[in-house]
Amino acid sequence: MRWPTILARYRRQVTVGLADVLHSEGFLYSILRYHVGLEDGQDPVNNHMGKLLRPTLVLFTAEQLGGEVGQALPAALGLELIHNFSLIHDDVQDGDKTRRGRPTVWNRYGVAQAINAGDLMQSLAVAQALRVGQDAAKTLLAATIEMIEGQGLDLDAAGQAVGVEPYLEMIDKKTGALIRCAFQLGSIVAAAPAGVEETLAKVGQELGRAFQIRDDLLGVWGDGALTGKPQGSDIRRRKKTLPVAIALSSARAADRADLERLYDKKTLTDKEIDRVIEIMNKSGARQAGEQMVIEHLKRAREYLVQVPFSTTGRQEMGELMQYLAERDQ
Amino acid sequence: MRWPTILARYRRQVTVGLADVLHSEGFLYSILRYHVGLEDGQDPVNNHMGKLLRPTLVLFTAEQLGGEVGQALPAALGLELIHNFSLIHDDVQDGDKTRRGRPTVWNRYGVAQAINAGDLMQSLAVAQALRVGQDAAKTLLAATIEMIEGQGLDLDAAGQAVGVEPYLEMIDKKTGALIRCAFQLGSIVAAAPAGVEETLAKVGQELGRAFQIRDDLLGVWGDGALTGKPQGSDIRRRKKTLPVAIALSSARAADRADLERLYDKKTLTDKEIDRVIEIMNKSGARQAGEQMVIEHLKRAREYLVQVPFSTTGRQEMGELMQYLAERDQ
Repeated sequence: MRWPTILARYRRQVTVGLADVLHSEGFLYSILRYHVGLEDGQDPVNNHMGKLLRPTLVLFTAEQLGGEVGQALPAALGLELIHNFSLIHDDVQDGDKTRRGRPTVWNRYGVAQAINAGDLMQSLAVAQALRVGQDAAKTLLAATIEMIEGQGLDLDAAGQAVGVEPYLEMIDKKTGALIRCAFQLGSIVAAAPAGVEETLAKVGQELGRAFQIRDDLLGVWGDGALTGKPQGSDIRRRKKTLPVAIALSSARAADRADLERLYDKKTLTDKEIDRVIEIMNKSGARQAGEQMVIEHLKRAREYLVQVPFSTTGRQEMGELMQYLAERDQ
Repeated sequence: MRWPTILARYRRQVTVGLADVLHSEGFLYSILRYHVGLEDGQDPVNNHMGKLLRPTLVLFTAEQLGGEVGQALPAALGLELIHNFSLIHDDVQDGDKTRRGRPTVWNRYGVAQAINAGDLMQSLAVAQALRVGQDAAKTLLAATIEMIEGQGLDLDAAGQAVGVEPYLEMIDKKTGALIRCAFQLGSIVAAAPAGVEETLAKVGQELGRAFQIRDDLLGVWGDGALTGKPQGSDIRRRKKTLPVAIALSSARAADRADLERLYDKKTLTDKEIDRVIEIMNKSGARQAGEQMVIEHLKRAREYLVQVPFSTTGRQEMGELMQYLAERDQ
């Protein structure tokens, strides 16, 4: 699948910016550089960084609405740092030992310093947004709070077997909040009218859903070699993903009871994971999930045409959205 | 020992303010209310809250410099929330099961939600400071970053056996940053001249040292029934406290080697803890520590007379500082 042009455009600026924010001396900062993939001696662009989706959305939006990329950069960096602080802590919470093919922070430096490193990154993130102004910082904090609330819902063991509605509520917070925030921060820097910011937030909301649902589908039916996480790992950890939410509402009674029983267990064997996937397959979760991705992508496009982006800009953003909804990694 | 008048003055405002910030629905907020001692059905003033020292310092300073308590309140709450977020995460990092006589957050809700709850509290804290303005938020973030750096130094196992200088550097960050910040936030709200803010930061720096050293002394020679933490618990966890720093530099060679050997162990028996205390006693760590408290308190007073507080205000602040330096709980 073609790598969307937007994802390459700001990559150097963002990586150089991150290197600048995280350059301080001290052990904790070296942990943070390790986490984002800014290891000494590596080209900051050819590294283990992810897609840098969120800062890209901030900078692209700002530019499309007539703002300056340079002015938007601290907000973009702040958002990327919030995302990364949450990854450091997520890995502790989930006990994940690798991320993007490398040992996670807690796995390499211990849980205590991983907690500390994440805490530091949260503060550094907001300090960056504050350089842009009070509005940017408020918007970033509101999104951070929502994201953490979403993580809280996700971790809540009491509701392990969720339905589709609670699932959507959870991902709107956990994933959607930061994607929406990206469009909002871009709007704020460009001093766009409130209506534009609101419409873009809706683009972000729909895109966030398409993105997360795609992620969940890849977790079950994706190629582990491409996604970087072993197939079935979401099931092994009994994560509240869309496939399980759909299967729980659509599977036949016997399968459903079996699924509930398996999701109540502390650990699952490989055979049990295969059984979960079988139930998901029979319930039509994959097709239903793919249909949802298409619908949310469609809605995102409907909102996108309402914002004053250039024709090329709309096209490029459309290409990015399609990539995120259809990606296989 | 007499409870200083200042510590009672703002207690209701601060507790009501905290209840307001943490009133939201959702599981995570109930965890946060539990942590600060705002349990349902309890009088928010007669609760398990601590001294509320930091917000008290913010409000008192603002008032003394001609600011409004109401205007300073969000900054005071933000600072108290930063302190509390750090306690939630500290307890996870140290594996402490109780705090102020109650189960710690991780002990009651699990490590994953404790990390999450602390993360949320950090964001809520900065959002409060931001209500006061950009300067207040920047100052709070800078202090938070320093505090986390200090916690990083404290957790750094490589430097388990520290000397007095690295110890002071560590506590200036870990404890001093937030105490300094309290005086700074009060100055910012009152729009005090930069010189006043700087002098007050020095008061905070000295007070922070006296406070933390006193804490360390209580950890070894205090009455566990009063301090709320079992005697010797700092030693059991081989924390970098002043008594061990002094003993390492002042004890005779054989004792010192023994101390280093014990601090290299993973766990200590009760007998080994007694041996550590014996070495500390022989090295004169208690007297030296008490002398340091007196000196830092003296310096704090010297800076205090330079700031434009009222005569009564200076007297009350002096009383509070003395209490903090001499307290037995």
